[in-house]
Amino acid sequence: MIPINDSPLTRDGKVLVLAYDHGLEHGPSDFTGIPESADPTRTFEAATHPAVTSLAVQKGIAEAYYPSYSDDVDLLLKLNGTSNLWMGEPDTAVNCSVDYAHEIGASSVGFTLYGGSNYEIEMAEEFRRAQERAREYDLPVVMWSYPRGQGLKNDTKSNVIAYASRLALELGADVAKVKYPGSKEGMKDAVRMAGKTKVIMSGGSKRSDRDFLESVKAVMDAGGKGLAVGRNVWQRENPEQILDALEKVIYEGASVDTALEK
Amino acid sequence: MIPINDSPLTRDGKVLVLAYDHGLEHGPSDFTGIPESADPTRTFEAATHPAVTSLAVQKGIAEAYYPSYSDDVDLLLKLNGTSNLWMGEPDTAVNCSVDYAHEIGASSVGFTLYGGSNYEIEMAEEFRRAQERAREYDLPVVMWSYPRGQGLKNDTKSNVIAYASRLALELGADVAKVKYPGSKEGMKDAVRMAGKTKVIMSGGSKRSDRDFLESVKAVMDAGGKGLAVGRNVWQRENPEQILDALEKVIYEGASVDTALEK
Amino acid sequence: MIPINDSPLTRDGKVLVLAYDHGLEHGPSDFTGIPESADPTRTFEAATHPAVTSLAVQKGIAEAYYPSYSDDVDLLLKLNGTSNLWMGEPDTAVNCSVDYAHEIGASSVGFTLYGGSNYEIEMAEEFRRAQERAREYDLPVVMWSYPRGQGLKNDTKSNVIAYASRLALELGADVAKVKYPGSKEGMKDAVRMAGKTKVIMSGGSKRSDRDFLESVKAVMDAGGKGLAVGRNVWQRENPEQILDALEKVIYEGASVDTALEK
Amino acid sequence: MIPINDSPLTRDGKVLVLAYDHGLEHGPSDFTGIPESADPTRTFEAATHPAVTSLAVQKGIAEAYYPSYSDDVDLLLKLNGTSNLWMGEPDTAVNCSVDYAHEIGASSVGFTLYGGSNYEIEMAEEFRRAQERAREYDLPVVMWSYPRGQGLKNDTKSNVIAYASRLALELGADVAKVKYPGSKEGMKDAVRMAGKTKVIMSGGSKRSDRDFLESVKAVMDAGGKGLAVGRNVWQRENPEQILDALEKVIYEGASVDTALEK
Amino acid sequence: MIPINDSPLTRDGKVLVLAYDHGLEHGPSDFTGIPESADPTRTFEAATHPAVTSLAVQKGIAEAYYPSYSDDVDLLLKLNGTSNLWMGEPDTAVNCSVDYAHEIGASSVGFTLYGGSNYEIEMAEEFRRAQERAREYDLPVVMWSYPRGQGLKNDTKSNVIAYASRLALELGADVAKVKYPGSKEGMKDAVRMAGKTKVIMSGGSKRSDRDFLESVKAVMDAGGKGLAVGRNVWQRENPEQILDALEKVIYEGASVDTALEK
Repeated sequence: MIPINDSPLTRDGKVLVLAYDHGLEHGPSDFTGIPESADPTRTFEAATHPAVTSLAVQKGIAEAYYPSYSDDVDLLLKLNGTSNLWMGEPDTAVNCSVDYAHEIGASSVGFTLYGGSNYEIEMAEEFRRAQERAREYDLPVVMWSYPRGQGLKNDTKSNVIAYASRLALELGADVAKVKYPGSKEGMKDAVRMAGKTKVIMSGGSKRSDRDFLESVKAVMDAGGKGLAVGRNVWQRENPEQILDALEKVIYEGASVDTALEK
Repeated sequence: MIPINDSPLTRDGKVLVLAYDHGLEHGPSDFTGIPESADPTRTFEAATHPAVTSLAVQKGIAEAYYPSYSDDVDLLLKLNGTSNLWMGEPDTAVNCSVDYAHEIGASSVGFTLYGGSNYEIEMAEEFRRAQERAREYDLPVVMWSYPRGQGLKNDTKSNVIAYASRLALELGADVAKVKYPGSKEGMKDAVRMAGKTKVIMSGGSKRSDRDFLESVKAVMDAGGKGLAVGRNVWQRENPEQILDALEKVIYEGASVDTALEK
Repeated sequence: MIPINDSPLTRDGKVLVLAYDHGLEHGPSDFTGIPESADPTRTFEAATHPAVTSLAVQKGIAEAYYPSYSDDVDLLLKLNGTSNLWMGEPDTAVNCSVDYAHEIGASSVGFTLYGGSNYEIEMAEEFRRAQERAREYDLPVVMWSYPRGQGLKNDTKSNVIAYASRLALELGADVAKVKYPGSKEGMKDAVRMAGKTKVIMSGGSKRSDRDFLESVKAVMDAGGKGLAVGRNVWQRENPEQILDALEKVIYEGASVDTALEK
Repeated sequence: MIPINDSPLTRDGKVLVLAYDHGLEHGPSDFTGIPESADPTRTFEAATHPAVTSLAVQKGIAEAYYPSYSDDVDLLLKLNGTSNLWMGEPDTAVNCSVDYAHEIGASSVGFTLYGGSNYEIEMAEEFRRAQERAREYDLPVVMWSYPRGQGLKNDTKSNVIAYASRLALELGADVAKVKYPGSKEGMKDAVRMAGKTKVIMSGGSKRSDRDFLESVKAVMDAGGKGLAVGRNVWQRENPEQILDALEKVIYEGASVDTALEK
Repeated sequence: MIPINDSPLTRDGKVLVLAYDHGLEHGPSDFTGIPESADPTRTFEAATHPAVTSLAVQKGIAEAYYPSYSDDVDLLLKLNGTSNLWMGEPDTAVNCSVDYAHEIGASSVGFTLYGGSNYEIEMAEEFRRAQERAREYDLPVVMWSYPRGQGLKNDTKSNVIAYASRLALELGADVAKVKYPGSKEGMKDAVRMAGKTKVIMSGGSKRSDRDFLESVKAVMDAGGKGLAVGRNVWQRENPEQILDALEKVIYEGASVDTALEK
C-alpha cells in the first residue's frame, strides 16, 4: 500500500470503479437483458459520470474504446481474467503487462487473486511481479481478492472476507475489492483487517435499487471506501440514475432514502 | 484492437485471408484430392489474386516461398499451430516469434486461442506476449478464436461463437476468425459482441460453390468483414474462379447468383 | 553464511526478530484474543523496544507502515509466505523480490524452506536466487527452516530440527530459524550442525511467561543466538513487559527468575 | 528453409551426415560388435572421407575431439538428445545452445522433434528458439523428424513419414531426416510433402551392404538428397569401404551394383 | 571436455576430490560416529593435505569456511544437491549459480545428473546451462553421473556405470564421477566409454582401509584418474593417515601393501 489519495482512482479518498470485464469473465449472456450493453461505448459514456473514479476493462476494450474517452474517463486496466469456458480450478490468465497498461494510458491496474485455489501460489507470484512493476510507474493496484477453490465452501462468510482483505494488505495492494460479507459487522472486520489498504465492495449481480444502495451504505458506514460496480450500473436501463444515487451515498454520506429521491 | 484499415490485411475495410497451414494442422491427407496442392507455390500463386488481402502460413513455408512473392503477396505469419498427431487436450505450439515474423516480412500475424481448453490460460498468456510484441511493430493481430476442449460439446453453437468473438475483442485482437455459427442471426450476434474488432468467418472444409458462397454472403450481410479460407480455395481445381466469386461477394456486395455467373 | 555481527539484525551477536506475518500465514483468527493486534501500528511500536533487532513483515505491511518507523525499527522483509487457505503440499509464494525489499528499506530478508515437501526443490531454487541477490546488497538472510510435508510425521524431533539447521548452513543462510526441538540437548545438536550459521528459535504459539522464557533460556544456554517471536509478544496485553524480560535473558544472560522480576 | 547449397552441409546439393550420438541415445551396447567404435577418434577419421558432408555429434564429443579435426571435418552439432535410460513418453533434453554450438565451430545444427509425443508442443517450441537463433548465425538446421509416442503404433508407415517431412518444412527446417518408409513410392511422397526442404534418410540399424545401399538408391531416385548414417558406417569393420560406395550412389548416381564393385 | 591438466583440479593429471556435502545430502546422521566431523573446519584442515586436489562443498559451507582456507585449499563448488527428506523421484535443486561459485573463489564446479530418473531431462538441461556458463570462466566441470530412478533396479551394474561415464563425455563434463562397478574390468569399460573425459570413482560409504584402497588401486589400474572421497576420509579418526595412503596409490602408483605401511 502506498498513498493514493491524490491519484485519479480516488475522489475525496473514496473509490467508485465502474467494472466492465464481464464480456470476458461471463460472456455474452450478461448482455442479454440490455442488448445495447454489449457495446462498450455505452459503458464508457456512463463512466464519464463524475461519480465514477475509474473504468475497469481488459486490454482489448481499452485499446479500442479508451482513445475516444481519454479526456473524460480514467482507465483502470484489469491485468488478468479468464473466460467461464474454463473448467479447471479457479485460475486466471495475465492478459496485459503493466508496461503495456501504462503505455495505453492506464492510471491504475487491477489483479484478481483466488486465495485458497490450487493456483493461489502461482497467482500470488504473478501479483508480485505486477505490483512491483506498477510501483515503478506509480500506478495504484487494486486486488480483486476472492478466496475460491477446493476446500472453500462458502466464499462470503465474514471470516473469509476478512482474510481476503488482509491478503490485500499483506501482499501490497492499495485497494481491496471484496465481496459483501452479508452484514455491516462483517464489513467492519474486513476494513479493520485491511489496515491502511482501502476496502471496496464488489457490486455483484443486479439487485433492486434499494437493496443495492443499502449494501453500499452499509459498506460506507463500516469504514469501506466505496465500491466496484458493473452489472448494477450497466444492466440498468438508466445507468446515470443509479450513478447519481451512488454519488450521494458514497461522496455526500446521504441516506439511501435521500439518494433515491428524484 | 487498433485501426487497421490502412494495413495490407484489409481492402476497403474487408479481409480475405487465404490460409495454408493445413500441412501442419492436418497433414498430407488434406492434399490427397488435388495432389499438386501440396506444393506451396500453387497457393502462393492463388494469393496473388487481388481478392486476397493476405496469405496465412507457418514460418517454414514463409521462409521458403515468400521471398519469391514478396512483391505480390502480403504475408500473415501464423505464429502457433500443432500437428494432429497430438493427442492431448487442444493446445498448440508457438512456432514463430513476432520478431522473426517481422524480420521475414510479415505484415500481420495470426494466433490460435482454444477457449475452454485446459490450456486456455497458458494460450491466453502466450497471446498476450505475441499481441504486445506485435503492437511494437504495428502488425495487426488475427485471433483464430476456437472454443474447444473438455466440457465443450458443441463448438459451433451461436452462443459459443459469440463468446469466441468477444474474447478476441477483450484480449486485444484486431480481427476475430470464428467458425460459422450456422445462421445469419448467429453471425450478427458474433459481430455485435466483437465491437470494433472485425469478425471474419473460418472457411472450413470444402463445400459446393453455392453453399460456400451463401455462407460468405450471410457473413457479409451480418456485418462480418470477410473470411479466412483455405480448403475451399486450394482444394478446388481452379482456385482463381472461386476467388473471382469471393471478390464479388465480399468487396462488391454482389449476390451469390451474380457471383456465380461466368 | 557471511559475517553479520555488524548488521542491524544483531545486537552483541544476538538476534531478536519480532515476527508479524501472521495475518498472511494464519489469517484474522490470530488477532481474535487481542483485537487491536490486527493493527500493524501496535507491533511496529513494540518493535521500537531496544531488545528487538528487526521486525519481520510481508511487503504490503512494510510499504504501508515502515515509512513512519524507519528511524526506530529495522526491517526484515519476509520474502515468501502463503495463506492457510492453501490446501496443497506445503509450499509458499515469493511475494517480494530482493530488489524491492532493498528499495523499501529492508536491512535483512527472510525466506521459508519446507525441507521434505514435494516443493522442496522448487523452494530451494527460489532460495538460491534470493540469497545470491541478497548478497549483492549485503543483506543478511534468515531461513525459516521448517521440514514439513508428506513423509514427515513429526517435524519437531531432534534429528529433524538438527537437519533443518544444517540445511540453513549448507544452502547459505546467515541465520537459521528453527522450531524448538523440545530439549536443550536437541538445541545443542541443532546449533552444532549449523556451524557458523546462527540458530534462533521460532517462538511458536502463545504460552505462559515462564514456559516461554524457559525455552528461550534453554536456547541461549545451548548456544543459540536468540529467537524470532510473534504471538508470544503481540498476543500479550503488554508486549513491552515480555520484551523487557527477553532482553535480560538474551542479551544479559539473566535467569528466568531474574527476568520475571518486575 | 533457406538456401543451403553453398553451406558445408551439402556437396552438389546432396547431404551425407555421419551421425555419432549413439553413445548418448543408445549407450555402450551399440559399441559391442566393434569395440574400438567407442572411441570417437575412429569416427572422426571416417568423417574425413570426402563423401561425408558433416559429422553429427553431441556437445561433449565435439568439445573433446573436434579441435583436432576442424580442418578436415564439418561439424553438425546435435542440440538435443536423451539416454535410453529415460522411461517416459518420448522427449529429449536440449544439451547445447546454438550460441555455444557456433562458438565451438559448428557449421550446422540438428534437432529432434517427436511429433505425436505428449511433449510435441514443448519440443516444437524449443525447436523454434533453436531455429531462430541458428538463423542469426546462418547455420543450416536439420530436423530429426520422428513421429513417436502414445497413439502412434507404426512410425514408419508412409503417411506418417510424409507428415514427418511436412513438419520439417512447415516449422522451418532446412533438411528433414526421416526414417525410410519402406518403399520408393513412400519416399516420393515424403519428398513431395517437404517442398523445398531437403529430405534425407535416417540410416537406422546395421544391414548388409546391398540392402542398405538399395534403400539409399531408392531414396535418391525418389528425389531425396542423401542420408544421415551412423551404425551402417561405424559398426562396419571398414567404414571407408561403405563410404566409397555411398559416394558413388549419392553424388555420382551410380547403381548399387556399380557401387559395390571393388 | 576441455583440457584440464593445468587446472587446480588435477595433480599430474590425477584427481582427488575431498567431498563434504553430506550434511545436505544425508543429514546429521553421517556425523554420528565422529561427532567433530560435523564441524566443516575439520574437513577443510584435511583438505590442506597435498594429496587433495580440491574440496567439494555446497555454497553455504564455502561462504562460511573457505575464506580462511583460500590459500591452502582449492574449491570445487557443488552446484546442486538435495536433502534426503525429499521423497520423490531422484531430483536435485540447483543451489548455486556458476557466477556466484566463481565469485566466491571456486576453481571448478560439480553437478549431479540422475540418468534414468523422471527428472533426467530437466537435470540435463540444467547441466547444459551450468556447463556452458562454466566454460566462460574456464572452470572444469565434474559430473556426479548416477543413473537412478524408476526402472533402474541395479545402479552399479557394469553396463549402467559404463553408460554413466559415457553420458559425462557426451554432455560435456571434464570429469565423470561414477560408482565403482564392482570389478576392474567394469571400471575399464567405464574408462573406455568416457574417452577423453577423466573417470574418477565415488568413494561411497566407509570401508576398511584395505578394502577401500584396493578399490582405488583397481580404479587406477583400470585407467581411472582418481577418486572423490568423503566418508572414507572424514569418518575416520585420522583423515591424514588415509590421505597419505591415497597419495601413494594415486600419484605414486604404489601397491596397497606399500601404501598401508606406516
